[in-house]
Amino acid sequence: MGILGLGLIGGSLALDLSQLGYQVLGVSLQTTTCALACQRGAVRVASTDWQLLAGADLIFVCVPLDQTVPSVARLAEFLPEGVVISDVASVKADIVAHCSWPWFVGGHPMAGTAQQGMGAAVQGLFRDRPYVLTPTVMTDPEALISVQMAVQDLGAKLVLTDPVAHDRAVALVSHAPVFVSAALLLAGVQADTELLGLARQLASTGFADTTRIGGGNPELGLLMARHNRAQVLVSLAAYQTQLQKLHQAITEEDWAQVVQALQTSQRVRGEFSPLPPAPPPYPAGPRRAE
Amino acid sequence: MGILGLGLIGGSLALDLSQLGYQVLGVSLQTTTCALACQRGAVRVASTDWQLLAGADLIFVCVPLDQTVPSVARLAEFLPEGVVISDVASVKADIVAHCSWPWFVGGHPMAGTAQQGMGAAVQGLFRDRPYVLTPTVMTDPEALISVQMAVQDLGAKLVLTDPVAHDRAVALVSHAPVFVSAALLLAGVQADTELLGLARQLASTGFADTTRIGGGNPELGLLMARHNRAQVLVSLAAYQTQLQKLHQAITEEDWAQVVQALQTSQRVRGEFSPLPPAPPPYPAGPRRAE
Repeated sequence: MGILGLGLIGGSLALDLSQLGYQVLGVSLQTTTCALACQRGAVRVASTDWQLLAGADLIFVCVPLDQTVPSVARLAEFLPEGVVISDVASVKADIVAHCSWPWFVGGHPMAGTAQQGMGAAVQGLFRDRPYVLTPTVMTDPEALISVQMAVQDLGAKLVLTDPVAHDRAVALVSHAPVFVSAALLLAGVQADTELLGLARQLASTGFADTTRIGGGNPELGLLMARHNRAQVLVSLAAYQTQLQKLHQAITEEDWAQVVQALQTSQRVRGEFSPLPPAPPPYPAGPRRAE
Repeated sequence: MGILGLGLIGGSLALDLSQLGYQVLGVSLQTTTCALACQRGAVRVASTDWQLLAGADLIFVCVPLDQTVPSVARLAEFLPEGVVISDVASVKADIVAHCSWPWFVGGHPMAGTAQQGMGAAVQGLFRDRPYVLTPTVMTDPEALISVQMAVQDLGAKLVLTDPVAHDRAVALVSHAPVFVSAALLLAGVQADTELLGLARQLASTGFADTTRIGGGNPELGLLMARHNRAQVLVSLAAYQTQLQKLHQAITEEDWAQVVQALQTSQRVRGEFSPLPPAPPPYPAGPRRAE
């Protein structure tokens, strides 16, 4: 197994795959990251030299979203035929369309923590979490099977769908919410100083929850908007329509409609399955029994 | 001390005030609630008869928002002059304007849990949490002092402001966010079945956080909209303007503006002070040392 990019996702993949008995080869830009990955037992060999990955059967490309396509292209220049490549980017249509390597399988593990880097990598990050694969008619069936087997080894919940359906769904539940949440903080900034000061004093857990992802890493939000632009705009437009209806119902004092909408939202939220607890922080505890 | 309404807030107030050595008289509509309040040591005497409260110096009215004004009016019919009344409703301008009892002091403790009722009441619920009092030019100074002293006894952070400023601030950080959050769930409902099914599988903690308060009790959301309508509409309009600007920047691929907005929201969120952990569930552990 090869891992290109030993950050939170790549490092956590490496930890689990090594634990499962695979020989893991890791590549990072930083020698210090390579050293940490070896020290933590995440990889058997780590290097800053990409040629190391020529010895792998399956390579996970775990670099930032906007470096995924150029990284796959660079690997394709020297890899032997038949080496399977999968990525972990949160957008799929744009990436799958630009990765012409015949043994490429688009992937997106729906897992993470608020931390970054190899130091934050944890065992079991993918266990019981959705792991999306987005094969197309161009995907080699054996390449898909080999990635599927790795996903199952990780204990993740395999979800097979097409790249555009993936992008629509994550726009709704992951990308558009960043902007929905950020706009609440931006509305606060527009308030006068006295109001903002009082609002800061009175903000409670409800406000903290609603603004959490809007106050996150700006670069990640930008990547989502850039690379999943069409679907983010569709989701935001649908969202704005719903909010405008609520606004209008409150304006018109149509309380029956307001309560009906809130009953619907309460019901819908209950239909989203409960989420597992966050994984333990590094250093991780003993691996959970199978 | 008198407590009218032995729910989560009234019950938690009663527990703390009894612990502090006050003689607490409790009134509830339900005899079973009265029995539970006595059993838990929250009150010295509990009754379904409001006349019990004629013996109190200070009464906290802890009934649902829309019953606050009629409850204060009913108390005013039989209470002796000089008995101080304070409420706990999350809206102040509308209530303060309709409570003509000369010794009334509007109040709003910014505390709570996801539970309801006397059974869910906990000691220390108000400790280190903001507790707003909204005196006006009509407020008796001694009445204000007696409520202030009780708030300080509870270990809460006293915030004095005027009723309209309170309503503007809570509209921004508490009431409007309910609709901002609910609209995200309603946008999900509008999606086709296939998309919604996939979205349910892929929803992560970020979606759970952003939709938490929008999926809450519909009756509470309705009360906020009804009783703080003007300020909720102002906040929602300010919110919609900010979201529309983000939508437009993404449409126009003005990435500099998108990243700048996300940097601003990240900075602003950091300026909201960190929140204390939730109080322990009932049965509560030993009281924290002073």
